[in-house]
Amino acid sequence: MDNQKNHEIRLKSRPTGLPTPDNFEHAESAVPNPGSGQVLVRNSYISVDPYMRGRMVDRKSYVPPFQLGEVLQGHAVGQVVASNGHPSLKVGDFVQSMNGWREWFVSSGNDLQTFDPVVPIQSYLGALGMPGMTAYAGLLRVGELKDGERVFVSAASGAVGSVVCQIAKAKGCHVVGSVGSDEKAAFLKELGIGAINYKTCGDLNAAVAAAFPEGIDVYFENVGGAHLEAALNNMRPGGRIPLCGMIDMYNATELPPGPRNLAMAIGLGLTLRGFVVSSHYDMLADFHRDMAAWTKAGKMKWRETVVDGVENAPKAFIGLFKGENLGKMVVRVGPDKAV
Amino acid sequence: MDNQKNHEIRLKSRPTGLPTPDNFEHAESAVPNPGSGQVLVRNSYISVDPYMRGRMVDRKSYVPPFQLGEVLQGHAVGQVVASNGHPSLKVGDFVQSMNGWREWFVSSGNDLQTFDPVVPIQSYLGALGMPGMTAYAGLLRVGELKDGERVFVSAASGAVGSVVCQIAKAKGCHVVGSVGSDEKAAFLKELGIGAINYKTCGDLNAAVAAAFPEGIDVYFENVGGAHLEAALNNMRPGGRIPLCGMIDMYNATELPPGPRNLAMAIGLGLTLRGFVVSSHYDMLADFHRDMAAWTKAGKMKWRETVVDGVENAPKAFIGLFKGENLGKMVVRVGPDKAV
Repeated sequence: MDNQKNHEIRLKSRPTGLPTPDNFEHAESAVPNPGSGQVLVRNSYISVDPYMRGRMVDRKSYVPPFQLGEVLQGHAVGQVVASNGHPSLKVGDFVQSMNGWREWFVSSGNDLQTFDPVVPIQSYLGALGMPGMTAYAGLLRVGELKDGERVFVSAASGAVGSVVCQIAKAKGCHVVGSVGSDEKAAFLKELGIGAINYKTCGDLNAAVAAAFPEGIDVYFENVGGAHLEAALNNMRPGGRIPLCGMIDMYNATELPPGPRNLAMAIGLGLTLRGFVVSSHYDMLADFHRDMAAWTKAGKMKWRETVVDGVENAPKAFIGLFKGENLGKMVVRVGPDKAV
Repeated sequence: MDNQKNHEIRLKSRPTGLPTPDNFEHAESAVPNPGSGQVLVRNSYISVDPYMRGRMVDRKSYVPPFQLGEVLQGHAVGQVVASNGHPSLKVGDFVQSMNGWREWFVSSGNDLQTFDPVVPIQSYLGALGMPGMTAYAGLLRVGELKDGERVFVSAASGAVGSVVCQIAKAKGCHVVGSVGSDEKAAFLKELGIGAINYKTCGDLNAAVAAAFPEGIDVYFENVGGAHLEAALNNMRPGGRIPLCGMIDMYNATELPPGPRNLAMAIGLGLTLRGFVVSSHYDMLADFHRDMAAWTKAGKMKWRETVVDGVENAPKAFIGLFKGENLGKMVVRVGPDKAV
């Protein structure tokens, strides 16, 4: 590894509005050497996720903000490629970490989770990783989904949304998702799920009403704005709205107005509940068990959008806010199998 | 009763914006005679409540809309003054009903609840009636209040809010309420509860932050608008917001924007839950038991604003939206004790 370099992406400046490539810095350094008891990991794929936009703002939140000049963090999958006397980790072990946006890193092992891949490893950043777990906890626990209910999902072809749709369908629900392109709508239809292209449907409220003549029991909120208003207008009594994300406003320089019809929640007895997946990792074993069963039964499929090269991570990240991904957006930063 | 007339208020036209006296019609008719098996009831007090504004709109909701030309409905307390062979109701029985906005009515008894007043009877329209029960269910069940939490209440000197404040205080909570006059603030202070006069405090968000240096666990929402934004900005992780009312928008001719900071619910894991009291009457016995105990212990006090004469019910109702009431607004339409 002596001739190889480590490439990484640092936060150069805090974005205002939609991030631009200028907010990021591509840096090259020597591949680090593991100290005593440490391992060297080579990342294969790193994740770019919408929630990272929030961490680029210098404010108190459920995760600390990214620091200027430091390597950006994010989920990553890779392999142990060298060990300097680590007691348990072996060369060749597949590991997940929060040490993304770089190609190589050294670790004591405390911040690594080993895994035994049974599907392509990048899927552990998507359907079988944090986004899939977000869908699972958000729909089943936060949204209290019951079999056979009526479920509306925004950003429905994305990493989280596409899993939400399929879990709901596996539970016998009537499911319709909102997407921003005909290609994405076609993907949902392949999965047997109804689709609304919000960019071409005209009046979103009318489109949602037509898709849910009996109303909505659970609206899985990834978007905010007009989507939340349209959902609120069509909820059934006792409906639940898990608030997973509001990508519509992550880049807003002035906070846009909230839903004008929030008062509908009163008479209908609606519950809007925000959540972050880290509060629900007690469900991880259930998630893995159910996802394995659904995948085996052909009820869980997913797509990934793969961008090559860590230097393109900023572009991939920015693309999330332009709807450039179908399914999970990942960046390939090394070989699938390094050793 | 032959010489007496029955006076009642009918809905003449559907209000646009703040209702005006012109939307109501004062009508006089003969006092009705009870048919066989019926009773004649004379109302003593009738209730005017903000939720009635919603029923003046011709739309599908959790209660059907009022009909033009018909007597307005609302809670009422009175006495049976004549019985035409009713099997169980006796002259002198105190009864509650939804037959308000009139002085007299006949009934088969099916729509009446008898009660044995231990406090002035108009209080069964307020602290010991539907508004008190709304406070109780909304705070304890919907808001999942825990002893010692930090509780913010809007419209805090009103029929519902003043009971919310005192329940929370009885549970050892830090309680601050928002009110719209110094007189109302003084009332809260008499109860040992902190008060913010939102009309004079300047930046509401800063005032709420100052009142809750450690943040808010439960915000009891009666108002909407700027109050909800200020509360959201100051919630603690896992906080709950029972949505009881949004009086700020009941008269809006165009729906005002919702809270710009609703996305804060995501990272903080907040729950906003709408409710109507009619879904929670299984708690009625608990409510009566606890209110009796708190009242006896001097922990539950209330005020009423009494307007005289059924012909003034529209004025009293309109006054709700101008903050003219301290505590429950009721209209006296007959003697406290008719027989």
